[in-house]
Amino acid sequence: MTESIASAGNQLVKTVASLRQKKYRDELGLFTVEGVRLAEETVAAGWLVDTCVFTAAAEADPRAAKLIGVLQERQCRLVRVPDHLYAKISDTREPQGIMLVTPKRAAAFDDILSRMAKPIIAVLDGVQDPGNAGTVIRAADAAGCSGVVMLKGCVDLYAGKTVRATMGSLFHLPVVAGMASEELIRLLAAAGIPLIATDLSGATVYSAADLSGPAAIVFGNEGAGVGAELLACAAERIVVPIYGKAESLNVATAAAVILYEAARQRLSTL
Amino acid sequence: MTESIASAGNQLVKTVASLRQKKYRDELGLFTVEGVRLAEETVAAGWLVDTCVFTAAAEADPRAAKLIGVLQERQCRLVRVPDHLYAKISDTREPQGIMLVTPKRAAAFDDILSRMAKPIIAVLDGVQDPGNAGTVIRAADAAGCSGVVMLKGCVDLYAGKTVRATMGSLFHLPVVAGMASEELIRLLAAAGIPLIATDLSGATVYSAADLSGPAAIVFGNEGAGVGAELLACAAERIVVPIYGKAESLNVATAAAVILYEAARQRLSTL
Repeated sequence: MTESIASAGNQLVKTVASLRQKKYRDELGLFTVEGVRLAEETVAAGWLVDTCVFTAAAEADPRAAKLIGVLQERQCRLVRVPDHLYAKISDTREPQGIMLVTPKRAAAFDDILSRMAKPIIAVLDGVQDPGNAGTVIRAADAAGCSGVVMLKGCVDLYAGKTVRATMGSLFHLPVVAGMASEELIRLLAAAGIPLIATDLSGATVYSAADLSGPAAIVFGNEGAGVGAELLACAAERIVVPIYGKAESLNVATAAAVILYEAARQRLSTL
Repeated sequence: MTESIASAGNQLVKTVASLRQKKYRDELGLFTVEGVRLAEETVAAGWLVDTCVFTAAAEADPRAAKLIGVLQERQCRLVRVPDHLYAKISDTREPQGIMLVTPKRAAAFDDILSRMAKPIIAVLDGVQDPGNAGTVIRAADAAGCSGVVMLKGCVDLYAGKTVRATMGSLFHLPVVAGMASEELIRLLAAAGIPLIATDLSGATVYSAADLSGPAAIVFGNEGAGVGAELLACAAERIVVPIYGKAESLNVATAAAVILYEAARQRLSTL
């Protein structure tokens, strides 16, 4: 059964709107997923969905309607709101009129380790731009990584822009968020996984490094790069060279190039 | 000498504002470059600058002030406008208060061919998103390509978002815009450069293809991929495989992965 809510003062509306802020996402343990395609990915991945909020216009769209039907079968709370109210709670500039409210589901480091005999892990250190963080998660998924670790100090995994930039990959592979660097160093040492840091002054060209074994590859802050603590512990420092005159590569682009090189090496040593 | 213009009815203001539209960029043969860093790249690359428009706030910024000084020496027209007028003519949501008006400078296909013994060319076919087009140009520059061809039907090279996404690479390597597919096919055949098309159903994994020689690698439309005409003429069809569960890779990410693989192969055969 679908409820209709038209008042901005309604508690659910206020709660959903509050989820645009990290403070409330942390407090409530919830986040939002907006847009038909992403919502489809969430449901297809079997992610738990608390509530689906949508407009009458979205309900008229066959894909959205189908999704709402599936959620109804799963006993999800369904809430129809008028356009102006949807725009008020939406985190996007061009709202598609459908969003899911879903519980955060933290992955554990063991989830990453248990997926492959030779785990390959993308680590984000101080990445600030949600688009970059999400795009690295998408590239890590595409390149067949075991999982992603977003260290403490990164942008929030559950921010709307991060979630959207993952294009659903957040629901496909384990992503551990908020881990401290020391903890990561300890866990990697215990698992026998070498830490490889990307570094603009890196001694080794990425394609000359041996990326065929287990590895945790760290991608750093957009301006400052990988932090000193992790650099100091790195078994190797690698760089994607700039062969032309471009000033730099975006961190997400560099990550894709490196993670696909790792995939290439891993497959050719099978 | 700096002029001060405060009227929205001023002809220069109207002209600059009109350059947000392709129609007027084409008619006047001009485009705008916004932001300090991009403006610096333009000037450093020796690109001709007609006019520099800025706010008093930008003038107070040391980097912008230095740039304005250099442009003054080069007899560039300097125009100070109030903030509200700048916001009116700006193409960005968070204007930095400095823009250059510069003539388009079309590169010729020969400019691309003459740069290297074994030219490697990135070709965009029907790429619609300005961010994607600009990011491919940036990646092509970084990966050491000879140049870029944007075929007829792509987003405008001189749109503000495209220019910004190139991060200045537009000024570093020859970019040919508006060429017809047949013309490209003819020119490549004449130069003996094989055409390699990216194709989601491509038979060859990109890293298994020989990319060490001269090559024109075509990247297609975000939804439909490379057009039938070019696919039919391709000496090879390649794909960046999805090893995980990600639905797809962004075209700019796929381009970076492929162009860096070409660089890797080319350098290892030197």
